[in-house]
Amino acid sequence: MTVTDTTTAAGFAALYQQVQQFYAEQMHLLDTGRAEEWAETFTEDGVFAANAHPEPAAGRSVIAAAARKAVDDYVARGIQRRHWLGMVSVTERGDGEVAASCYALVVETGRGGRPELRASTSCDDVLVRRDGRWLVKDRQVRRDDLG
Amino acid sequence: MTVTDTTTAAGFAALYQQVQQFYAEQMHLLDTGRAEEWAETFTEDGVFAANAHPEPAAGRSVIAAAARKAVDDYVARGIQRRHWLGMVSVTERGDGEVAASCYALVVETGRGGRPELRASTSCDDVLVRRDGRWLVKDRQVRRDDLG
Amino acid sequence: MTVTDTTTAAGFAALYQQVQQFYAEQMHLLDTGRAEEWAETFTEDGVFAANAHPEPAAGRSVIAAAARKAVDDYVARGIQRRHWLGMVSVTERGDGEVAASCYALVVETGRGGRPELRASTSCDDVLVRRDGRWLVKDRQVRRDDLG
Repeated sequence: MTVTDTTTAAGFAALYQQVQQFYAEQMHLLDTGRAEEWAETFTEDGVFAANAHPEPAAGRSVIAAAARKAVDDYVARGIQRRHWLGMVSVTERGDGEVAASCYALVVETGRGGRPELRASTSCDDVLVRRDGRWLVKDRQVRRDDLG
Repeated sequence: MTVTDTTTAAGFAALYQQVQQFYAEQMHLLDTGRAEEWAETFTEDGVFAANAHPEPAAGRSVIAAAARKAVDDYVARGIQRRHWLGMVSVTERGDGEVAASCYALVVETGRGGRPELRASTSCDDVLVRRDGRWLVKDRQVRRDDLG
Repeated sequence: MTVTDTTTAAGFAALYQQVQQFYAEQMHLLDTGRAEEWAETFTEDGVFAANAHPEPAAGRSVIAAAARKAVDDYVARGIQRRHWLGMVSVTERGDGEVAASCYALVVETGRGGRPELRASTSCDDVLVRRDGRWLVKDRQVRRDDLG
């Protein structure tokens, strides 16, 4: 991943593409049960806040533990979960951070069952680049049914 | 947004990225109830045609009024609507206009409810650039259930 | 489609964009019933394997015949099918081939009916460029309900 002049159209397109690929890789990790590797896509002090949770998860170890619990529960119930992030809008901030707003759907499929939409949400991220990798510094997820 | 040489691979990728981001921003406006700002993403004489409507909405004010009515109705019913546009294919036309064909899903979630697929459609746009912004000149939406 | 230096951020973004557009165009063909044109998006000896099928379809003519059968069946039942590919992760391989991993949803809508999620899958492709066009050399589709 190369540092790019994002003031050009091609440079901004490269940033946007990196965010799309980052989201794909990040969710492939979670949806295949690699909870600890998923937590590594947050900064060491990263925050994951969701209106479905009583309080935010702060820090990789807390995020990893919460993800591990959820992943193990899905495995025990024989359900394949898939997170779809889309409708991504990327904005550069002056401080080198990137704001990315998207929609997220959670699709769940049980063995022998039909896929079901479990949740529709908005997702607002602050992304930062560390050692050539994109990481989530802050994620705010809002489930539509709790809106 | 920079004017770009779209005859290069990087230039065409920049155009494609701009369309993706435009779709995201446009639908974020509609899905958060900003009907009038949403109408501003059409040209002054823009057309919104749908096989679910008896006749096309022509012109920003007509498009805004129709969107406002729908938005207010969703708010009154406590339903969060989200438009997902995807599977985007972009083609440049010789006249500086851009044809973009995509799929669109409408996902609706009521308070305390489960997300539901309300509509699956195709969406065929003619996009133009005015003062550095992309705008919809013509949109043709076809709902699959009426096909 | 131009050969591009994918070692730059803009070059890799162009590759990613080409894969996105290829997926859109490919699935537009299948979902509008153009089974034979769809088969042309595979290499002559392309392989389509799915855990829902007893054995892989190998070669364009076999892929076309299977797609034609499915397409005709959907038409007979009055169902519009749409394939959504998303969460795309692209990796270049040293041999000029490209690995692309994504999620795929199948949405079906009958006349007068509501859209339904028919299948949630992962899709792992090997893509190659022939005469300036991307083609699928190998596709592995895994339906989540059979996982």
